[in-house]
Amino acid sequence: MATTSKATWIWYPGDYEIWLGNKMNNRRTDRGAYFPPFWKQDSHYVTVEFSKAVSLAEDETLTIATEGDYNIKIDGKMLFGMPATFTLPAGEHRINIKVHNQATPPALYVSGKTVNTDATWNVTFEDKEWIDESGKASDTSSTVYMPAGCWNFNTPEQLPSAFNLSRKRICPVNNDGSLYDFGRETFGYAVLKGINGNGTIDLYYGESEEEARDKEYCETLDKLVVKDGKVTDLATNKTTELTAEYVMSNSKALRFIYIETKGCTVDGVELDYEYMPETEKGTFKCNDEELNRIWEIGAYTMQLTSREFFIDGIKRDRWVWSGDASQSYLMNYYLFNDNEMVKRTTWLLAGKAPITSHINTIMDYTFYWFNSVYDYYMYSGDRHFLTQIYPTMQTYMTYVLGRTDEDGMVEGLPGDWVFIDWADKPMDKQGQIAFEQILFRKSLESIAAVAALVGDNESADKYANMADELGKKLLPYFWNDDKQALMHNRRDGKQSEEVFRYPNMFAIMYGYLDKEKQDAVKRSVILNDDVLKITTPYMRFYELEALCMLGEQDRVMQEMKAYWGGMLNEGATSFWEKYNPEEKGTARLAMYGRPYGKSLCHAWGASPIYLLGRYYLGVEPVKPGYEEYTVRPKLGGLEWMEGNVPTPFGSVYVKMDANTITVNSDGGHGTLIIGDKNNERKIEILPGKEINVNL
Amino acid sequence: MATTSKATWIWYPGDYEIWLGNKMNNRRTDRGAYFPPFWKQDSHYVTVEFSKAVSLAEDETLTIATEGDYNIKIDGKMLFGMPATFTLPAGEHRINIKVHNQATPPALYVSGKTVNTDATWNVTFEDKEWIDESGKASDTSSTVYMPAGCWNFNTPEQLPSAFNLSRKRICPVNNDGSLYDFGRETFGYAVLKGINGNGTIDLYYGESEEEARDKEYCETLDKLVVKDGKVTDLATNKTTELTAEYVMSNSKALRFIYIETKGCTVDGVELDYEYMPETEKGTFKCNDEELNRIWEIGAYTMQLTSREFFIDGIKRDRWVWSGDASQSYLMNYYLFNDNEMVKRTTWLLAGKAPITSHINTIMDYTFYWFNSVYDYYMYSGDRHFLTQIYPTMQTYMTYVLGRTDEDGMVEGLPGDWVFIDWADKPMDKQGQIAFEQILFRKSLESIAAVAALVGDNESADKYANMADELGKKLLPYFWNDDKQALMHNRRDGKQSEEVFRYPNMFAIMYGYLDKEKQDAVKRSVILNDDVLKITTPYMRFYELEALCMLGEQDRVMQEMKAYWGGMLNEGATSFWEKYNPEEKGTARLAMYGRPYGKSLCHAWGASPIYLLGRYYLGVEPVKPGYEEYTVRPKLGGLEWMEGNVPTPFGSVYVKMDANTITVNSDGGHGTLIIGDKNNERKIEILPGKEINVNL
Repeated sequence: MATTSKATWIWYPGDYEIWLGNKMNNRRTDRGAYFPPFWKQDSHYVTVEFSKAVSLAEDETLTIATEGDYNIKIDGKMLFGMPATFTLPAGEHRINIKVHNQATPPALYVSGKTVNTDATWNVTFEDKEWIDESGKASDTSSTVYMPAGCWNFNTPEQLPSAFNLSRKRICPVNNDGSLYDFGRETFGYAVLKGINGNGTIDLYYGESEEEARDKEYCETLDKLVVKDGKVTDLATNKTTELTAEYVMSNSKALRFIYIETKGCTVDGVELDYEYMPETEKGTFKCNDEELNRIWEIGAYTMQLTSREFFIDGIKRDRWVWSGDASQSYLMNYYLFNDNEMVKRTTWLLAGKAPITSHINTIMDYTFYWFNSVYDYYMYSGDRHFLTQIYPTMQTYMTYVLGRTDEDGMVEGLPGDWVFIDWADKPMDKQGQIAFEQILFRKSLESIAAVAALVGDNESADKYANMADELGKKLLPYFWNDDKQALMHNRRDGKQSEEVFRYPNMFAIMYGYLDKEKQDAVKRSVILNDDVLKITTPYMRFYELEALCMLGEQDRVMQEMKAYWGGMLNEGATSFWEKYNPEEKGTARLAMYGRPYGKSLCHAWGASPIYLLGRYYLGVEPVKPGYEEYTVRPKLGGLEWMEGNVPTPFGSVYVKMDANTITVNSDGGHGTLIIGDKNNERKIEILPGKEINVNL
Repeated sequence: MATTSKATWIWYPGDYEIWLGNKMNNRRTDRGAYFPPFWKQDSHYVTVEFSKAVSLAEDETLTIATEGDYNIKIDGKMLFGMPATFTLPAGEHRINIKVHNQATPPALYVSGKTVNTDATWNVTFEDKEWIDESGKASDTSSTVYMPAGCWNFNTPEQLPSAFNLSRKRICPVNNDGSLYDFGRETFGYAVLKGINGNGTIDLYYGESEEEARDKEYCETLDKLVVKDGKVTDLATNKTTELTAEYVMSNSKALRFIYIETKGCTVDGVELDYEYMPETEKGTFKCNDEELNRIWEIGAYTMQLTSREFFIDGIKRDRWVWSGDASQSYLMNYYLFNDNEMVKRTTWLLAGKAPITSHINTIMDYTFYWFNSVYDYYMYSGDRHFLTQIYPTMQTYMTYVLGRTDEDGMVEGLPGDWVFIDWADKPMDKQGQIAFEQILFRKSLESIAAVAALVGDNESADKYANMADELGKKLLPYFWNDDKQALMHNRRDGKQSEEVFRYPNMFAIMYGYLDKEKQDAVKRSVILNDDVLKITTPYMRFYELEALCMLGEQDRVMQEMKAYWGGMLNEGATSFWEKYNPEEKGTARLAMYGRPYGKSLCHAWGASPIYLLGRYYLGVEPVKPGYEEYTVRPKLGGLEWMEGNVPTPFGSVYVKMDANTITVNSDGGHGTLIIGDKNNERKIEILPGKEINVNL
């Protein structure tokens, strides 16, 4: 009889993700010094109980693998030792397996003909199984069980704790024996070939040639001592035997490596490129080669920053940041559609109770986290994850609600980083900030929606009411009729005089303004050059999204070409953390008061991926997991475009030129919408049936 | 110039203790199966920042050792790599060192001429050091720092994570080639000598001969397979090379080992006795040899159960339990006076937030934990620890207060184990139980006292008020004039008809009854044979303490001799978990419905150690750390007695017979009190000045 094992390694949801995240977040270095995150890092539960009730038609032998010591209880009775297999007779059984591991997350893999570990198993970190005088186990322990977490470790040999990114050897495109140019932004482990003699080797990494050649100020570097056939890495004090190739033990972001030797020689430098294998399921092509290049460089920027998790920049910080990640998720939905990475990143960002600060210490970042959970549900339809993450959402919302003022609004208290954006002019971060209230309101709406989906209707109502109450105060508190805008903030009951783009564009995006005020804000803020310009791709993302929502695809196309095309003209091979077209020369490399502080490969730089998929190809889920979706293609000034948008069921292909639209979809129930709101045509899209519409 | 390093390894307070506790708690086995605790087990913070401001008269070179990756920041500037030494120029400096370790607690050892790691260093798990656009670090991060934790790892080579108990080889006193008798209760790793041939070896451990010989029901056992020069432990599936001696990889409690071989032979069995080296600073001798033996066996019971932590029983559970531990602490103060073990155990029991259940899941055990912290302060004078533990106390009290009813009383909610005692008759555990309210009130008093000591006066007042409010309800709710007793519980506003000793003796002990009611309770409950007798040494501890507080030393002496002497007559070589003099034969070994379920070496069996020190030698601190103390010796029917009571400053020696009292003390300010309350003589005791008083 053919038996297909469908077993996968399982663990307490979030635990593996937090553990792997710690491993990643703690690999950052700053000029050769170890540089960990400055927020609380959490850990896995060290003992986890896995359980499952099974019903067997015939006897079945199960094979078990674990990461950790374990015991097996069948129908309440423990087996001797830690057996590698065990047999269950036909009938109903309850399997309880406890696994203990202090160093890495307790994980379990059980496979049999019908019984296999998967996300349907229950897990708990405390079964509270106390006994009374007679030895009877308690019936009032009220243990809370969670559905297990898993990923793609589908054989007993693939230990989750042994996970590593992939590697591929790459060679420099150019070198003069001391400066090695890998041709574009990349990431990996420097490989020194043919080290000879005794002496020292210093490596200086640069995203730019200037940085690699600047020994005093480059952001990352390595120092080696070679002596008598041994190499010592001075950053870690680890010594290894010298062989034909010496591979550095930590990876770096770079385009250039500048190498300086004393007393010894090196034949050449290569790189072990390190990456998460991701398929670009999303595609985009059009008649405009610059735009095609923007899409490609955006996709490559995503390739570099999508690793164990979605990180922000690959050179300087290599950490997971919620604001950055929530944009990566959106780009991901139109490029890789890797749901697992979204979930992993969401778990890591949340960490574990007790909450001692906002996510990444940043108030706004906590709010993005809430909203991204609901976004994820819309793109994936994954309700299982909502069940797992909802208790954590509640814990965070309790934290947030514990920090509101007498108006029920959030204000930056000691320990709260109120970030908003890296703006080119000082921003008042005190008092009630309009931008934060808007994100807070949206977060309350998001948690209310999730609460309803997991059946906690009482909380859903409570959160929805809070969102409404807060919503009612936004205009009275922040709208200014003279300025026709939402003002920046309010202190001691007094509205400030400052106008920034942020609250205004978010209010449009979240639909918090009526048509009249939307138009007003568009005029007086978004299209008003007197209001401080945004110079991070981070906030340009939302600014351009707001404009797209207002139907300004033509204008946004020009902006994209000017801004991202501007970076390309500056020689970018991946997109940057910040780009001010007015800065020239080495000034474009500086940030944070450091000459090379700016990251030249930053996830939030890749937003055209999202904008082109969602607002030009125009594909968007309207029911969770694309069960229903719409396609509203807009050329935005292009002659033609075509592309695929990945979905849980495959992809939606869209092609458009001035005369025709073609749509082809692998699944779901779609609606092609052509024309503007006053004159819409709707055409049904059915799976596998190509539609060709003449305009 | 002579330089004495006073450096010690430091860590985040509680972190090492929790980690070491996990290691210990997860070594329990049940008939060859791994058997972990059923409550949540916590972990260390994986990245910890250590900091210290120093002022140097001259340049100083510091040597650094860590457990984990690290960085060093001097005056805000990071050094390259992980240097083994670094030099500070003369002047004021701020040292910040971050250490990261996922598997074992991040720990730091820095030594120099004047700068050394010790408990004065600060630690945090989140420094929240975010920067602004200019690179400036935040000045509003409001990071919470704690004073560092440490123990006795005083050289850079003594890694805290490498800690192991001591071992000593011991031989059986008797054996017939299959049953090995080690002469008394002991603990360690079985050593098999001269294994020959291929086959299996089964080991059955017994605290009694009956248990060791009962292959089906003995509580612990091991199974080995010997094949071709290799031995496989079937409990762990680990295989090792066979040498002249095979040492088991897990330790067991035993007096007897019964061994059965098939196909192979074993020349002999010895034991690697495993123990925490503890000096018996407390001593007791008297004219009664039975009582001397009780003291010795009590001390040996403490030796066996005082390990990495104070555990309860060495055979069956080997876990740390708060109710048991809080008694071990008190015995410890009169025997080893090992403050470090008290603190370690307190940290481990508390674990970390979030609190998801009572300590060990038991409501009463949470309360004992509060009270033991204040006890510790009285015996040690260690205010530093109060500063470290107070936040955790607050967290627990918040948990408890969140589970009170409309009367402000605790009731067993789902998930709460209401334990009280292993009683020989069913006890109603529902509703408002008098015993629990009394412990709760005492806990509020304890936390109020600690709050005041750490300067949190607002909370001190709040907790004190709560204790008063609860106190005012005790008599109206539970006192019954007909029974002249506190009744067991109250359900739906109605007092029960049940009288148990527990609330009555605790009310006496904590001084919650006036003289008249004390006398009434003594008559109607404590000395009333119709009220269910206590058969655990656990609750006999408090019963006898209450009687001692009522001046009944003569009666308690008779009880001690009858009860603990009774166990000795049954052949006890350590004291038991439970002893009912009416049980005979193998019934005395049974518990929890299992024929050998009873632990024959249980910490709470050792209470005479405490009673003799505190109520016969009569030594008691009246100010923290024995700064002031009293000595009220009582012969309790003995002809003479003498002994030492350990204190932070050395010991207090007391000798007494019918005619004279001798007292000699190493420190503190003592008062010798002779006679009863109506006719007291007080004599001042000064350090180093022996006092001889004629009675």
